[in-house]
Parts: sequence; structure tokens; C-alpha cells
Amino acid sequence: MKITVGVSNRHVHLTREDLQVLFGTDYELKKQKDLSQPGQFASTSVVTLKTNKNVIENVRILGPLRDYTQVEISKTDAYALGINPPVRNSGDLNLSESITLVGPKGELNLKEGCIIATRHIHILPEQIKQYNLEGKEKVSVRISGEKGGIIENVYLKPSNNTFLEMHLDTDDANAHLIKNGDIVEIL
Amino acid sequence: MKITVGVSNRHVHLTREDLQVLFGTDYELKKQKDLSQPGQFASTSVVTLKTNKNVIENVRILGPLRDYTQVEISKTDAYALGINPPVRNSGDLNLSESITLVGPKGELNLKEGCIIATRHIHILPEQIKQYNLEGKEKVSVRISGEKGGIIENVYLKPSNNTFLEMHLDTDDANAHLIKNGDIVEIL
Repeated sequence: MKITVGVSNRHVHLTREDLQVLFGTDYELKKQKDLSQPGQFASTSVVTLKTNKNVIENVRILGPLRDYTQVEISKTDAYALGINPPVRNSGDLNLSESITLVGPKGELNLKEGCIIATRHIHILPEQIKQYNLEGKEKVSVRISGEKGGIIENVYLKPSNNTFLEMHLDTDDANAHLIKNGDIVEIL
Repeated sequence: MKITVGVSNRHVHLTREDLQVLFGTDYELKKQKDLSQPGQFASTSVVTLKTNKNVIENVRILGPLRDYTQVEISKTDAYALGINPPVRNSGDLNLSESITLVGPKGELNLKEGCIIATRHIHILPEQIKQYNLEGKEKVSVRISGEKGGIIENVYLKPSNNTFLEMHLDTDDANAHLIKNGDIVEIL
């Protein structure tokens, strides 16, 4: 079974309340471009990630707003910032890493909310059935090429309104020399 | 067969002639610390990598001097610098990427010499025999953990004066959440 790769650079999801802390009251996200997942978009807004050790500027806010604030970075980013976020599925933020966000109108000290996102696949329930993946929580995926191999613990995220795509972070993509739109194989 | 991982950050090897261009006549590398491979060391000297797009500062020179000048970076570094180095074994520099090195006494425009190093294993000829790896040019290696998997195209580099160790770049290490000294398994 072949699947398209979407590479996720570091990014931030915000609640409305946290958006207002960073950008001011009545601020609204504006779409810069649509992402492959239905309704999701890269906004025109960016923040700075800040820790005691370092900052990373120009980190994109993705829309729409959510009911939790979440910062997704790579292990490479985590070393640069001197922090140790856990590998988690989106929204699973209990006891995740602390980080500070800096916007034009204010700072937000998150006690938790910073994670390294799990490798995952967005998939329709009928595709789960079609590809005989019923009952599986996660799969392994083969990546070909000079720095190819097999990546494990790729979580299936079935949803009724989704575009079939595997999401990897920039560390996984760069280690395997793959980029947005490349095709890989579910084992 | 278990093997220890050594993670290679971006670094530079220099000829004596190129050392003199960057640091001045009669300059000698001084050891900062020994590396695991016999006779190899991290020097106290650093240079800046420069391209049309960007710079990366404080890139370590490894010693001793060699009969070729070589810059080893990760794909993440390559994106930051806006260049496209090939994946190569050390010393295989024909038609590799261009890059500029900046030292305290001069600049060096390399027409070729910048690579992404292949995943490789330093191994004694008797260990090749002992572990039934005779005749193999490369192997696959299993990495366990939350972001584990199997990495392919790991080249065997047998030599009579070597310390058994697998060398990975920072992209491979960070993608798989492994660090210097971790243990992995040759398949």
C-alpha cells in the first residue's frame, strides 16, 4: 500500500484565549495557504519559541483554532532549545514539556504543551478496511533510497473527513532524504 | 550483533595546505579531545561554513590532517545553507558539493568537498569474520525505541586499526531519538 508523505515543520496550534494573549483582543488568524488535511491551513501569523537556553523565531501558527494549545517541534529543535519534549499524539499533553511563546502583544508561559509529534497516518475508516489494517493501532512504513529503511510506530488516525497522508517531522524526513509529496509504502 | 553508536555532528577535515589558508602559516591543530577512533581527535579550531544563502558558525575541525579537505554536514544543515551535497563515503569527493570555509586568516572556496556522509560501521577484519559479515559491502541496523526502525545502506569499513562503532549523522540520530553511546543491532 503506497502513501504520500507530508513533512511537518515545527508549528503551533492555539486556543482562542491564547491567541488573544499573544496577538491581542479580536485578533483573527488569516489563511496563508491551505494544508492537505480538509479545513486546516497555515496562517500568516508566527511566534517565537523561547526557553532559558535559546529562541527559535518565525514559527508558524496553524489554523483553525483548537481547544488546546500545542507546540510541535523536532528533536533537533529540542536540542537547540535545551528541552526534552515527549513523543506524543496530538492533544495528549499531560506532563508534556514547558515552553514560552512570544507574540507581538504578549508572552505565554506554557507549563505543558510542547511535544515531538508521533509519526502518523491520516486515513478514512473505509481505507482502514480496504487495506486490511483493521484493529491495528500503528504500522511500519518502508522508505526507499540511499538513506532509506523502515520506520516503526507510525500511528493510524482514522477520521471521516481526512486526506490519506503520512505525517513525519523534519528529522524523520531529513534523515531519510524524503520530502513533501514523496511516496512510501505501508508494510 | 550489538554495536555502539557514535553520532557525528557537522565537521571538517583539512589538508595542511588548506589549514594554512584558513589559519595562517605554521598553524598546527591542537587536540581538544580524543575521538573513539584511534588517533582521531576533535581540535580546538573551528571555521564558518558559508554559502550564498547562509552561514553556519563554529564548525569543528577534526584531526589529524588528511590528504583531502572534506566538509561533512547533515541534510538539515544542507537545507539551511541552500545546497545539495550527495551522500558519499569519506574521501569520495568527485563532483560533490561546493562550499566556502571561513577561518581567522582566510577563506577557502571549495569547488567540491561537501558531502552527507554515508551511515557506516568501523570494524576490524577479524570482527567481519567473527560476525559472518564476509563479502558484505553494507548492512541494515535495527534501532529500538519510540521512534525506532531499521536503517539500510550502512557501509562496513574494515580497517586494522579501528574501534568497532557505527557512525550516524545528527539527522539519523535525532530522527530515531538515539545518542552517542547507545547500543543498536546489526541485522
